[in-house]
Amino acid sequence: MIDKKNEPGDTSLQPLEKISMTDRVESRLGEYFKSQGLVPGDPIPKELEIAEALGVSRNVVREALSRFKMLGMIETKKRRGMVMTQPDILNSLERVLDPYLLDSHARKEIFELRLVLEMGLSHLLFARIRKEHIAELEEIVQRELNAKSVKERVQCDIDFHATLYKIAGNDILRRFQKLLLPVFDYELSYELKLKDKVSQGKVTHQGLLRILQTGTPQEFESAMYEHLKPHFDTIS
Amino acid sequence: MIDKKNEPGDTSLQPLEKISMTDRVESRLGEYFKSQGLVPGDPIPKELEIAEALGVSRNVVREALSRFKMLGMIETKKRRGMVMTQPDILNSLERVLDPYLLDSHARKEIFELRLVLEMGLSHLLFARIRKEHIAELEEIVQRELNAKSVKERVQCDIDFHATLYKIAGNDILRRFQKLLLPVFDYELSYELKLKDKVSQGKVTHQGLLRILQTGTPQEFESAMYEHLKPHFDTIS
Repeated sequence: MIDKKNEPGDTSLQPLEKISMTDRVESRLGEYFKSQGLVPGDPIPKELEIAEALGVSRNVVREALSRFKMLGMIETKKRRGMVMTQPDILNSLERVLDPYLLDSHARKEIFELRLVLEMGLSHLLFARIRKEHIAELEEIVQRELNAKSVKERVQCDIDFHATLYKIAGNDILRRFQKLLLPVFDYELSYELKLKDKVSQGKVTHQGLLRILQTGTPQEFESAMYEHLKPHFDTIS
Repeated sequence: MIDKKNEPGDTSLQPLEKISMTDRVESRLGEYFKSQGLVPGDPIPKELEIAEALGVSRNVVREALSRFKMLGMIETKKRRGMVMTQPDILNSLERVLDPYLLDSHARKEIFELRLVLEMGLSHLLFARIRKEHIAELEEIVQRELNAKSVKERVQCDIDFHATLYKIAGNDILRRFQKLLLPVFDYELSYELKLKDKVSQGKVTHQGLLRILQTGTPQEFESAMYEHLKPHFDTIS
């Protein structure tokens, strides 16, 4: 990574030396945090101490620390200087999951990842579903039956699946699927452009809901597969 | 986020104003990239132009750009200045997935996420498994049968499941599970300390392998659930 940015013969006017130095300092600090087994709340050395210890300028250290701050791994506390914090693990993922920045291969992989998550939810759903969840899903299914446009139906589709993730009761999972959504949408609207309709599996949302009410996790897995089958069929 | 860092009465010696300004510039740049629909290869304005447009110092802009460089969203190209690049979406996740920085709730959620992925793999596995994969799994199962220590058995367990992800043929998924592994290990070794053994489901790796050879995706899902059942039993 560092070497790549330090290409010889680079004639652009960016401060390459320094960028590369930031990468190095960042990497050294990351190793240091791990090797010290630092946990949230533990103080870290001051900017000046780090600069002196590594023999680099304070600006470089500040840039590297700024990266860790962005990741949520360190923060500045009143009267205590910088301390380690529990990072929000999806925060940085959120920044990079832009369908326009990903090539078709990456988008395809993310699309598959969503299929995997959806298929794997079943047991969490059955362990955690409550009455009010059923009511929520019923409302969405009803709305879908009354939908007058493709756009409304697509929204019901999104709502139904998002509600499943909510029911699964795992916050990281729920936010993760939300992050994948723009990429998934991008792929779907591509399909919509090609075929003028979104492929539907044999099992509808209503069918899935019925199994959640009276069926088993295994039945739900099979039904979800049928529901997603048009997407699975594109896998090669 | 920005406000939180700008706490009134903060008496630490960090350049708070400036850190908060970096957050703001980063956020504005992120919005700008999206609103312009920039794709990999597209040039972005120079550091100086950004600084002038936003009315902030070059140092602040440099820090913000440094963050995007870390995320792999921009890079410096010969003779072309800075351009957008396709980010490696898991790179930043890698930095923050440190079990020591995550609290038990986050670790538990990640543990569940792994169960969901494992349960959801089935159809990808059956679509993509090849003869040489079977041979690889057979070697691991054989090694496990001959294992003399808990440590060896744990390694076989890791190898078996990692090979499943490899077979699924989705690079993002495979790397994602690799990232989750330290957190998973942390939870397992905690369990090991409590009970002096790792709980085993009714279906062994050998059982899973047999179904991969002669069974169906549905059978594999059920078997994987039985295999992971001791973990699923901890879900509430």
